[in-house]
Amino acid sequence: MERIRTTQLREHIAQRVILRGWMHNLRALGKISFILVRDGYGIAQAVTQDENALSALRGARDESVIEVEGVIVAEAQAPGGVELRDITLRVLAPVTDPPPFPLNKPTVNATLDVFLDHATVGLRHPRKRALLRLSAGIMRAFREFLDGEGFTEIQSPKLVASATESGANVFAVDYFGKRAFLAQSPQFYKQIMVGVFERVYEVGPVFRAEPHDTTRHTNEYVSLDAEFGFIENHFTVMALLTRVIRHILARLAERHAAELELLDVKMPMLNVIASPAGAKQSPINLGIDSSPTPLLAMTGVELFPHLHFRDAQQLIFEKYGEDCRGEPDLAPQHERWLGQWARATYASDFLFVIGYPMSKRPFYTHPDPADPKYSYSFDLLFRGTELVTGGQRLHRHADYLAALARAGYPLEPFAHYLEAMKYGMPPHGGFAIGLERFVMQLCGLSNLREATLFPRDTHRLTP
Amino acid sequence: MERIRTTQLREHIAQRVILRGWMHNLRALGKISFILVRDGYGIAQAVTQDENALSALRGARDESVIEVEGVIVAEAQAPGGVELRDITLRVLAPVTDPPPFPLNKPTVNATLDVFLDHATVGLRHPRKRALLRLSAGIMRAFREFLDGEGFTEIQSPKLVASATESGANVFAVDYFGKRAFLAQSPQFYKQIMVGVFERVYEVGPVFRAEPHDTTRHTNEYVSLDAEFGFIENHFTVMALLTRVIRHILARLAERHAAELELLDVKMPMLNVIASPAGAKQSPINLGIDSSPTPLLAMTGVELFPHLHFRDAQQLIFEKYGEDCRGEPDLAPQHERWLGQWARATYASDFLFVIGYPMSKRPFYTHPDPADPKYSYSFDLLFRGTELVTGGQRLHRHADYLAALARAGYPLEPFAHYLEAMKYGMPPHGGFAIGLERFVMQLCGLSNLREATLFPRDTHRLTP
Repeated sequence: MERIRTTQLREHIAQRVILRGWMHNLRALGKISFILVRDGYGIAQAVTQDENALSALRGARDESVIEVEGVIVAEAQAPGGVELRDITLRVLAPVTDPPPFPLNKPTVNATLDVFLDHATVGLRHPRKRALLRLSAGIMRAFREFLDGEGFTEIQSPKLVASATESGANVFAVDYFGKRAFLAQSPQFYKQIMVGVFERVYEVGPVFRAEPHDTTRHTNEYVSLDAEFGFIENHFTVMALLTRVIRHILARLAERHAAELELLDVKMPMLNVIASPAGAKQSPINLGIDSSPTPLLAMTGVELFPHLHFRDAQQLIFEKYGEDCRGEPDLAPQHERWLGQWARATYASDFLFVIGYPMSKRPFYTHPDPADPKYSYSFDLLFRGTELVTGGQRLHRHADYLAALARAGYPLEPFAHYLEAMKYGMPPHGGFAIGLERFVMQLCGLSNLREATLFPRDTHRLTP
Repeated sequence: MERIRTTQLREHIAQRVILRGWMHNLRALGKISFILVRDGYGIAQAVTQDENALSALRGARDESVIEVEGVIVAEAQAPGGVELRDITLRVLAPVTDPPPFPLNKPTVNATLDVFLDHATVGLRHPRKRALLRLSAGIMRAFREFLDGEGFTEIQSPKLVASATESGANVFAVDYFGKRAFLAQSPQFYKQIMVGVFERVYEVGPVFRAEPHDTTRHTNEYVSLDAEFGFIENHFTVMALLTRVIRHILARLAERHAAELELLDVKMPMLNVIASPAGAKQSPINLGIDSSPTPLLAMTGVELFPHLHFRDAQQLIFEKYGEDCRGEPDLAPQHERWLGQWARATYASDFLFVIGYPMSKRPFYTHPDPADPKYSYSFDLLFRGTELVTGGQRLHRHADYLAALARAGYPLEPFAHYLEAMKYGMPPHGGFAIGLERFVMQLCGLSNLREATLFPRDTHRLTP
């Protein structure tokens, strides 16, 4: 007899089958005992009145690994409308102690800290594992979309020689007696690889030694990175990103309906607007001082609604009475307001803020040729929280030399990066999506750690 | 006019199109000039006799980013049987210096060290980028196969609190003034997550601070990890792995024919044998001292040929005259001999060596209940080099306590791992494939670094 999954019972009604999994719950109602078996996919109910059958479970507590053989019967009262009867039971691996907190209640009844301390067991809770299954679904959909668009996956090194990107907030590693660092992002490598593959993506860990402890940050997270060449400007990147996000959400709805339902997820409003006249007629951006020649007309492109950074600040001033004009960045509460505004104005849970000031963006950011104080970069807010950062990058060797000089950086740590730029790079850009942020905002979680498999922060390196 | 890819020319014969890419080569044959354009996908030829058209390229060297507009004409002499004529040219990003070595010769004419020093440009060479495209193809096929088998992807933390798995060869990280380490493998996490998802995989970087410098090792590489529960024994794992490898090779042949041809790859011999009688009748292995009860009969399972470690040593003694009986491991040349033997005997480029001595395997390895000096572990040799390591793991809490005590390890660093084992783990096992090793052996490379995107070794942290 083949073992079947708990999610396959309806396909085998009236047959005798074997289930294997964890004893999720055992309770008696008078003479009838109900055993819930949880396997890697779902939960099924087995029922018996036979004391002999039950005796096999003697001494086995919740989470014991068990085997149930029985006949599948349709039963409207049972979870999923089916249950196993006429059962025999067997314990494959007994558990003798109760878990640190119950795993069979509708929600986890533990503080976040206690939960995280025992996450190696706590993640078995159906709601907790549903979050991580959505993470897997996001990664899969991200890759399949980009594979279809001619992107090539790379896995760039995480051990790097210099703290190059910003010079701060990097973890130092003892590398055979020399000093190395953990990569804050695959930014340089994905740009370099545009010179090889033209279109690349990477899904992997990034490391930020930021000492602050917020509900929206951890020190190691998973970044979904893409970068591609022959773009028109940052709008080309935003158009692709819009399609990536829509694809991911469509695939989640298809493949993970059970998880979305269990977590009461309200799917995001996804209204897009046609790209504005300005974007449609914008030329391929060949460099800061190049004369714009219309080349690639973006026609019929759909984008999430967008707002220039300047206009966002003006809006916050007019609508919420807070004067942040002159600040080089948006505060978290301003982002939340913009999220509400986009929802009310565009019926969209996503909003691009474009044109951030150059002073707050990294040196490789492409300035706006028409107003070089501002950049061809963007953030994508999801329900009022930054989910993605991206933009057009510099691509001319001379522009890099000038930008590094302006930033006061030495050239030597950037030698290999600059070599790629020297030997012909097309106009290019890309973005980085925070995986855990995506799950957090999608599921309305209050802390990023709930969406993170074994989070790392200033206080926590285990489990 | 839309830009098309160089690989799409045959679909647009007689049409006027735009190509964008890198100037791979420019040569004159009398009055006729041939321009090779390389984009992210392939190479196309453009031809002109018009000095005016050519003048746009003045001063632009190889690797300049260019645009070619022209009419596609079938031409038997041209690469791919088509070429662009009646062209106009434009330079999008000029290059003024020759690259560190030519990128347009059939092979790279540079020592490995020089190549690696300039890899940010050198990887543009068609043969070099073909290797990395095969890497991407392997990762994609690995994931799609396991997705189809009900596995869930995880991304486990790379920053860990203790140097747990072996206690040696780990990189230390300064983590906010505390000491952390880089994970040598996702081993503990993937086992823990079997308790959650039952079947999991991870593709990601692993870090080995091994000070030796060989052609088959680097200090950071990409590991394709899988782990799953409710196995019979290590043969269940070997059966899945056989299918994974066959799937990957079939997808490569389908999707990457151009790369395989360019690299003159001889596809591996893939003969499988039916699982032997011993494996067919072997019981689910519920622990070292459990009485075997036949439960899951592996019937009709196909496996790459396998050989017990003891028999491998005997074979090496008889056939090659070298007495390694008594040694706890196989030397690289012994593995090479076994590879030749498997090829001659089974017409297979893959050979499982099973049952390695417990003394050379990590503490979580499941011993052979019939002879506990040996283990339920395996290596998979690919053309005589270790490609995969795997096996059945311990799953009972008590067995872990005993194994750690035997190894003389303290319990505390393993507390979280042990907690997962305490709360019900099924018999489980898994494996880890080295991505770069796979490409190296498939393509017959003499050094793992040639298959690695920006390798890290004791001498090299850049680019």
